[in-house]
Amino acid sequence: MAKEITPRSEDYSKWYNDIVKKAGLAENSAVRGCMVIKPYGFAIWEKIQAQLDKMFKETGHVNAYFPLFIPKSFLSKEAQHVEGFAKECAVVTHHRLMNDPNGKGVVVDPTAKLEEELIVRPTSETIIWNTYRDWIKSYRDLPLLINQWANVVRWEMRTRLFMRTAEFLWQEGHTAHATKEEAIAETLTILDVYATFVEQYMGVPVVKGAKTANERFAGADETYTIEALMQDGKALQSGTSHFLGQNFAKAFDVKYLTPENKEEYVWATSWGVSTRLMGALIMAHSDDEGLVLPPKLAPIQVVIIPIPKPNDDITAVADKLMAELKAAGISVKYDDDTRKRPGFKFAEYEMKGVPVRIGIGKRDLEKGVVEVARRDTKEKYSESLDTVATHVKELLDQIQDNIYKKAFDFRQANTTSVDTMEDFKKVLEEKGGFISAHWDGTTETELKIKDLTKATIRCIPNDAVEEAGTCILTGKPSNKRVLFAKAY
Amino acid sequence: MAKEITPRSEDYSKWYNDIVKKAGLAENSAVRGCMVIKPYGFAIWEKIQAQLDKMFKETGHVNAYFPLFIPKSFLSKEAQHVEGFAKECAVVTHHRLMNDPNGKGVVVDPTAKLEEELIVRPTSETIIWNTYRDWIKSYRDLPLLINQWANVVRWEMRTRLFMRTAEFLWQEGHTAHATKEEAIAETLTILDVYATFVEQYMGVPVVKGAKTANERFAGADETYTIEALMQDGKALQSGTSHFLGQNFAKAFDVKYLTPENKEEYVWATSWGVSTRLMGALIMAHSDDEGLVLPPKLAPIQVVIIPIPKPNDDITAVADKLMAELKAAGISVKYDDDTRKRPGFKFAEYEMKGVPVRIGIGKRDLEKGVVEVARRDTKEKYSESLDTVATHVKELLDQIQDNIYKKAFDFRQANTTSVDTMEDFKKVLEEKGGFISAHWDGTTETELKIKDLTKATIRCIPNDAVEEAGTCILTGKPSNKRVLFAKAY
Repeated sequence: MAKEITPRSEDYSKWYNDIVKKAGLAENSAVRGCMVIKPYGFAIWEKIQAQLDKMFKETGHVNAYFPLFIPKSFLSKEAQHVEGFAKECAVVTHHRLMNDPNGKGVVVDPTAKLEEELIVRPTSETIIWNTYRDWIKSYRDLPLLINQWANVVRWEMRTRLFMRTAEFLWQEGHTAHATKEEAIAETLTILDVYATFVEQYMGVPVVKGAKTANERFAGADETYTIEALMQDGKALQSGTSHFLGQNFAKAFDVKYLTPENKEEYVWATSWGVSTRLMGALIMAHSDDEGLVLPPKLAPIQVVIIPIPKPNDDITAVADKLMAELKAAGISVKYDDDTRKRPGFKFAEYEMKGVPVRIGIGKRDLEKGVVEVARRDTKEKYSESLDTVATHVKELLDQIQDNIYKKAFDFRQANTTSVDTMEDFKKVLEEKGGFISAHWDGTTETELKIKDLTKATIRCIPNDAVEEAGTCILTGKPSNKRVLFAKAY
Repeated sequence: MAKEITPRSEDYSKWYNDIVKKAGLAENSAVRGCMVIKPYGFAIWEKIQAQLDKMFKETGHVNAYFPLFIPKSFLSKEAQHVEGFAKECAVVTHHRLMNDPNGKGVVVDPTAKLEEELIVRPTSETIIWNTYRDWIKSYRDLPLLINQWANVVRWEMRTRLFMRTAEFLWQEGHTAHATKEEAIAETLTILDVYATFVEQYMGVPVVKGAKTANERFAGADETYTIEALMQDGKALQSGTSHFLGQNFAKAFDVKYLTPENKEEYVWATSWGVSTRLMGALIMAHSDDEGLVLPPKLAPIQVVIIPIPKPNDDITAVADKLMAELKAAGISVKYDDDTRKRPGFKFAEYEMKGVPVRIGIGKRDLEKGVVEVARRDTKEKYSESLDTVATHVKELLDQIQDNIYKKAFDFRQANTTSVDTMEDFKKVLEEKGGFISAHWDGTTETELKIKDLTKATIRCIPNDAVEEAGTCILTGKPSNKRVLFAKAY
């Protein structure tokens, strides 16, 4: 089974696709660019959703649901939004089918043309701010802290499972505030929620920072991002949090009465993460044998396999162990399917990234031990039956930590400071990764560097230190380094 | 606040809309027929989802996600499906917008026409069975027990919040089985899950039964339903579970190899409940003061209100009480907002259907008591501070039971057996409700009765007893009674 995966060294992109398919995470559908998220992949997404949802609620947010469709005219109400936003959208023009007069299935009923076309939401700022106009009258109605879990559609030309698909699942937060300060604080609160989640649950270290003006969300005054580094040295934007100023409030005329009875425009934020996180999760940790999952997001944390096949003694031990692990909140599966041999099962769960495998063999049992195997390091060892439940509980935490540490060390080793364009190109070509360099702050220079090297400014890190330097391209003065990389 | 609700006796339909709006559950959007589910309404839906999802998983199902769009040609592959299914669908014909050459916002780019139109899913049998063809090869791949939580679109002409909207949220289960018996058993398992959920969580009694051939889902061999009775004497179909035979397997060529190496078509089921359940929940229990929620689905189960306003003593007591209730798994809110008076808050939480209200007043505290008020019966009484936490825990169970009992008694009182067409019309006109009557089993008679009375056969109850009788319309022999009603 494992042999079916293309090694990373041979073709990174094919390696990724192989894992997505062979671990049963997702596949392409009959509809161009739309994916099917398979049960195992969806179980991981459910864990991502559940934890993020909990964190949103703990920070005072509530969920709601807004329409799938946006009237075409709404998109052009915020000038920057429509200008900057990709116009590759699914457009609904008719509302009825009819039997083909020639008897060949169904055709679109030409008489059922919509007066105004509807756009399948690519993001929901416009329809939501049009709704907020009725919800916000007074300072008492603020802040409004709403999130929505939804599907969105952007008609991408080149798609890749999870990373970029025409339809994807995401959450989009849309908040309204009385003051600029409060809205900015919200933007940063969410950036912290995202970073905490991606680091502590997905085990992927991120850099928090601001996007350059050129890379900002269309309609935002400031876009913050978390950027992660993949194993091929390319960066992956994993979540964004936008301070929208009063742009959407002005476009949709959303004002509130202050305690002093003055009318003011409302301040806004929006923020989102998507099924793209699945791509980051897969790419950051997996190896040539398959998926590697952090225990906190693994649908099955421990698999127990009878060797070579189940018997009453083995099953009794497995049942007892399962009960102990379940009582500790660990998800465990006993695979006693007699149609598959142990070797096949080992490869299967390795492919699926199950963090811990426990083998129970007849002879081991006589010695009072079982075999414990870690997915992350591939270590195998005997563990006493008396201690194995306690051991596994600790081991899962160790694996979670180890996966993060490995990704963190990789990122540290692949973040390079350079001071000249020559070094910049050299590092980008030979090593890749994040490159920390001075930049003169202009979009012109940013785009020139992109033209020359395909690298973009991933972010201006929030923790960038003040440091006098000169732009690697123009030699103009710069007071802090920014982070460049080639990106997904 | 309560005065703003139209009484049921005056205008039932307006009463319903008033509650939906004033309790903050949902509202119409800028897009025809599409609703906005507001945070409080969505919090109830999240509780419905969480419990159903748990029950699906306990019965062996897993979640997955399939595309929003269905290629037009797929819809006509199963002949009955396309014939019977409403053709009022949202049709995507283009995939790009462009700036209006006349400078007026955006227009559809005429060059970006899709080769084949895409339909926004009205239900997903076709796209899912097209996918299952690749997933099912052998009896080892069966059963396949998959559910999806999704939005679907049916271009309804007359819409009503939650009850019938162009876009709605639902779950759709799609299972594949090796044998007919297993598929039928699955259909009935899910019918039981639905009935258990609606009765035990929503507090709404249901009749389980089969639909007549005429009312079957397009493409099904048998459709089972749960039917609930609303306070206006009309029935509401609350969930359906379909045995699809081999119809979709044949249309999409889904075969499996038996253990004997024979190729056979797969047997199928599909089943769903939607945000319509919210309509049933609201209509079944609410009164002229607002929403009445069963405790198991109430986002806030207990609200604590300081009278007339918070002070240190009251807040200390509230904090202690909240801690005790939260430890018992009860969701509780302390409303210490000083901008609103107690009377206003009372009306507000009454409107929102919060099951238990605890008032903490200065003078009551001196006596060591608080005031407990039940939303369902509107009883109010003093309860000792020492016992109130324990009492409230029991009270929530009592309220849950009482709400169900009330709805059950109402249904019993409004289910009438009749033996003649004259009585049928009389009962329907004067009393409404379910009418149990003999029917000759033909679609012709069923449709004639509908034409004459607007009543339809809601179901052939699963527990209908064998009983010789004659059809109320034709006098032909019948061996069991079926359930008629006017319906939503």
